[in-house]
Amino acid sequence: MTGMLTIAGLGPGDAALITPEVAAALADATDVVGYAPYVARVAAREGLVRHASDNRQELQRAAEAMRLAAEGRRVVVVSSGDPGVFAMASAVFEALESSPQWQGLVIRVLPGVTAMLAAAARAGAPLGIALYNPRSASRPEGFARALEVLNEAGCGDRITIFAHAVTTADERIDALPLRDARPDMADMRTLVIVGNSTTRRAGRWIYAPRRAS
Amino acid sequence: MTGMLTIAGLGPGDAALITPEVAAALADATDVVGYAPYVARVAAREGLVRHASDNRQELQRAAEAMRLAAEGRRVVVVSSGDPGVFAMASAVFEALESSPQWQGLVIRVLPGVTAMLAAAARAGAPLGIALYNPRSASRPEGFARALEVLNEAGCGDRITIFAHAVTTADERIDALPLRDARPDMADMRTLVIVGNSTTRRAGRWIYAPRRAS
Repeated sequence: MTGMLTIAGLGPGDAALITPEVAAALADATDVVGYAPYVARVAAREGLVRHASDNRQELQRAAEAMRLAAEGRRVVVVSSGDPGVFAMASAVFEALESSPQWQGLVIRVLPGVTAMLAAAARAGAPLGIALYNPRSASRPEGFARALEVLNEAGCGDRITIFAHAVTTADERIDALPLRDARPDMADMRTLVIVGNSTTRRAGRWIYAPRRAS
Repeated sequence: MTGMLTIAGLGPGDAALITPEVAAALADATDVVGYAPYVARVAAREGLVRHASDNRQELQRAAEAMRLAAEGRRVVVVSSGDPGVFAMASAVFEALESSPQWQGLVIRVLPGVTAMLAAAARAGAPLGIALYNPRSASRPEGFARALEVLNEAGCGDRITIFAHAVTTADERIDALPLRDARPDMADMRTLVIVGNSTTRRAGRWIYAPRRAS
C-alpha cells in the first residue's frame, strides 16, 4: 500500500477560506470522494477522478475511499467546513475500525474553517451555543424542541443568529431574540448561534464581552 | 475615515493553515497589531508597521488599532487560531461600544482554524469538550477544578487528549483516561479535548462514532 487517504475540510463555501494545506492536498490528489455538492466545489482537471455520492452514504463512501487508497491512489475525502464537525472523519474511522485489511493505510486529517466560526465572524464575536444543521431531514423535530427547552430555561432574551449559507453568494444573516425564533427560519444550509447571557449588540455587531459585567 | 480594521485569525501555528483571505488582508495591511508572539508570525516587509504588545493588554491594543484605522491606515489585528474564540474580536467590539467616535469605521472579522479543530484532526475525530488555555496565568486553578468536576460526574473513563503547540515544530499529542490526567500536563500552549462518552480508540486514532452504539 503506497496510497494516501486525506480527510479534508473545504471551509464553509468561499474558496478564500480553503487552507493552503487542503489546497495542496487537492492539487496532488488522484481521487476526490464526497457528498455531491462538496465534490462539485473541487474543480475538474486532468488526472483527477471525482466520486460524488448521495447524502447519508457516509460509511459506503468511506469504504470506497479506503479501497481506492489501498490501490495506491491519493484520495481526498472532502467535507464542507471542518471534517471533524458533523462530517466525514468519524465515518472514515468507523469504517477503518471494522476493516482490519486497511489498518496499514496512511491517513491524515486536515482541519478546515467550520461554519460556526465563519457565522460568528459575520456577526461579530457572539460565542454561545452553535446548532449545526438544525433542520436535518432525518431529525426535523430536534430544532423546535431545542428552542422550547431554551425558552423554558429562561433564555428567551438571548440573541439568536440565523446564518444562512455563510460565505456563499446566498449568505443571509438574521438576529433576533430567542423567543421570536421559529423553526422554519432555518433550513439545511443554516447554522444557528444562540448567544450566551452576556451577548449583546454594538451597532451592527453582536458580541459577548470578554468578562461578564 | 477611509481606513479599514480587520480582525483576523492566523490559525494554530502552521503557515499552511492561514486562509487565503487572511493572507490577502496581511499582504494589503499597513499595520499589524497584536500580542507579540502572534505579530511575530507576520513577516516584516517594507510598508508594514508591526505593533507588538504584551498579553492582557487587549482593550488598549484594540483602541490603538481603531485609532490607526481612523487615521486612514489598513490595520489587521491578529490572534492565534480564530479571532472569536478567546481572542481579540470581543475586545475590539468592547472598545468600539465605548467609543462613539469610531462607530463609522469599516470593520471586518476573518475567521481562522481554531486550535480545537487542529487538535481534533491530529487525534482523529474525537469531538467532546474542548478546554482552551487550561493553565491560564490569571486562572491557574480552573483546570484542576474542571478535572475534579468531570471525575466526580463519572467521566473518569473518558479519553482525554493533551494537544501541545499543535501544528508547530513543538507539537506533542498525548491521550489518556481523564482519571489519569493531571493539571501539570498542560501549559499555556496546550489545548485539552475531553472525549464524549462514546469516544474511543481505533488503532492510533481517537474518534467518536457518528451515533452512539
